[in-house]
Amino acid sequence: MARPGLVEAVGQLDPWTGEMAAYALGWRDTSGAADPSASEGKGLRQALAVLSAEAVGARGRVAIPAAVAVELVHAFSLVHDDIMDGDPVRRRRAAVWCSYGVGPAVLAGDALHALAVRTLAETPGEQASAAVRRLSVALTSLVRGQADDLRFACLPWQGPGAVGPAAYRVMAEQKTGSLLGCAAALGAELGGAPTATVEAFDRAGRHLGVAFQVVDDLLGVWGDPKVTGKPVHGDLRHRKKTYPVLAALTGDSPAARELAALLDSTEPLEGENASRAAALTEEAGGRAAARKQTRKQLQAARTCLTGIRLAPIPATQWETLITYLLDRTS
Amino acid sequence: MARPGLVEAVGQLDPWTGEMAAYALGWRDTSGAADPSASEGKGLRQALAVLSAEAVGARGRVAIPAAVAVELVHAFSLVHDDIMDGDPVRRRRAAVWCSYGVGPAVLAGDALHALAVRTLAETPGEQASAAVRRLSVALTSLVRGQADDLRFACLPWQGPGAVGPAAYRVMAEQKTGSLLGCAAALGAELGGAPTATVEAFDRAGRHLGVAFQVVDDLLGVWGDPKVTGKPVHGDLRHRKKTYPVLAALTGDSPAARELAALLDSTEPLEGENASRAAALTEEAGGRAAARKQTRKQLQAARTCLTGIRLAPIPATQWETLITYLLDRTS
Repeated sequence: MARPGLVEAVGQLDPWTGEMAAYALGWRDTSGAADPSASEGKGLRQALAVLSAEAVGARGRVAIPAAVAVELVHAFSLVHDDIMDGDPVRRRRAAVWCSYGVGPAVLAGDALHALAVRTLAETPGEQASAAVRRLSVALTSLVRGQADDLRFACLPWQGPGAVGPAAYRVMAEQKTGSLLGCAAALGAELGGAPTATVEAFDRAGRHLGVAFQVVDDLLGVWGDPKVTGKPVHGDLRHRKKTYPVLAALTGDSPAARELAALLDSTEPLEGENASRAAALTEEAGGRAAARKQTRKQLQAARTCLTGIRLAPIPATQWETLITYLLDRTS
Repeated sequence: MARPGLVEAVGQLDPWTGEMAAYALGWRDTSGAADPSASEGKGLRQALAVLSAEAVGARGRVAIPAAVAVELVHAFSLVHDDIMDGDPVRRRRAAVWCSYGVGPAVLAGDALHALAVRTLAETPGEQASAAVRRLSVALTSLVRGQADDLRFACLPWQGPGAVGPAAYRVMAEQKTGSLLGCAAALGAELGGAPTATVEAFDRAGRHLGVAFQVVDDLLGVWGDPKVTGKPVHGDLRHRKKTYPVLAALTGDSPAARELAALLDSTEPLEGENASRAAALTEEAGGRAAARKQTRKQLQAARTCLTGIRLAPIPATQWETLITYLLDRTS
C-alpha cells in the first residue's frame, strides 16, 4: 500500500542517490534496470503502520506517510549498518557499499534518513508535529541500539563487563524495537487514536522488535540457509553476541563451559568448530531460552493491546503477524 | 550562546557516540579530555540563527533550539563528508573517521543528524512544526549538494558535460547555502516573524552560503596555510572543481588553455605544477571572477533584507558578518 508513496519520495532525490536508494530498496539493479530477482524485504514496518491505523478504526491510507517514513528509516539503517558491520551481502545481493563504494553508501543512507523525516514533516494534519517528534526519538534510539550492538563485539563473553541476555534485550529494543514501536504508534497516531492508545501500540511494537531480533538470531544458527539466504552459522563464525549464545552462557553445565572456552579461544570458528558451538548452544539450553523469550515478548505485545477496543479484522491481522513473527523461516 | 544547549543535546547520546560527537565538535580529544588546542569552528550557523531572531525583534534565546540544531547538522555533515572525500584532516586534527574508524564515524554522524531533528522537534511552541519541516528540507538539499560535489569529480573540465560556474553555484547553494539559509530562517521563524520575512532570511542565508563556499575556494588556493590550517594548493593538487578554476576555464586566453591542458593531463599536480596552475588560474581571471562573485552574492544577501524593518543593532551585526565573510583569512 505504501509503494506509490515510497516511489514518490525516492523520486525527490537527485538521480544518483535515487539510483542507490532504488537499489537499496530492492527495486533496481546497479545498472538501474528493474531487478525482479531482488527481495524488497518483508515490509513489516509499513504493514505495522497501516494495520495500527486500521485497528483504531481509521482508513489504512491515513498511515501512508508514516509507512513511507519508517520504511525509509529502515532502508537507511540497513545501508549504514552494513558499512559498520563490514557486511558485504544484504538480501542475497551485494550490500550498497559493495556495489557503489563506502562514500556513496554513506551519502545514500543520509539521503534516506533525511527523506524519511521530510516525508513525515510535510504530511498535512494536526498530528504531523507529534508524529515527527516520535520519529525523531525513534531515530536516536535506533542509533543508540546500533552503538550498543557494535560495542558488544568488544565486550567479554563472561566475567566482569560481560554482555548478558538482559543487556541484549535492551539493545534489541533500541535497535529494532524502537522503529517497530514507532511504526505501530505512528499508524495509531495518524489514525487519530488517543495518546494512551498510541503509547500502547508503541510498547507492543517494541516487544515485537525484540522478538523479531531473537528470531533472527535463531535463524542465523538453525535456519535453512537456502530459505534465509544467510550463510550457515554466519553469526557464530563472526562470534556475534546473539541471544541463544548469551542465554546458553548463563548456565553452568559442562556444555555451557565448553561453549565459553570455545568462544574465548583464538581459534577460528569455522566448519566443525562452528557446528560444535551450535550444538553446545542448544545443549546448554540457549535455543530453548531464545524460543521462550520470543514467545514471552510476543505475549507481552498482545498484553499491551488488551483493553483497547480494536476493529475486528485488523485485530485478527495483528494476531496473524504475531504468529508469523514466531514461526517465520526467513 | 548555544553552547549549553549543544552540551545538553550531546549529553543525550550514549557515552560512545557522545565521545565521538564531543571530538567532532572540538570539545574533547580522543582520550575524552578537554582539548583547548582544538578549534570549535566558526559558529557561523548558530550566530545566524540568533542574529536573525534578534533582527526581527525577538530575544536571541528563542533561537537557541534552532542554533543547536543547525550546529549539529553542520557537525554531522562534516563527519560524513570527510569519509566521502577521504579527507584525513579537519580543523588541524585527524578527522573523526581517522581517529575512530569509518564505521564508528558513520554512526557518530547518524547520531548528530538524528539529534538535530529531535532537538528542534521537541521545542515547545507553535512554530516548532514549521521549523522541523524547514530543517528537513534543508537536510535533503544538503545531501543533494554533497552528491553534486562528489559527482563533479567525475565530470570533465571542458566540452560536453563539463562543470561550469553556474552549476557550481547551484551545488554550493545546496551544499552550504541551504543550511545557512535554514539557520537564518529558523531564527526569524522562532522569533515570530511573518512568512515573507522568514523566506527573505532564507534567501539571504543561501547567498551567504554561496559566498562562503567561494571564499573557501579562494583561501584554498591563495590563503596562508599557517592561517587557514589547510595544506597549500590542496584543492588544486586534488583537482577539485573550485570556483576560481571553473571561472578561469570559461575564458579563451592562452592562460586558460594552458590551465585546461594541465588539468586534463595525467601528471600529478604537485609542487611546481600546482604553483603553475594557481598562477594560470589568476592570469586567466579566475581569482578576480571569484572575488567578484563573492561580492555579488553578499550584495544579493543584503538586497534580500531590504525593505524588512530590522532592529538596528542586529542589522549592524549582519553587516559585520557580511564583511567578515568577504574578508576572512581562515
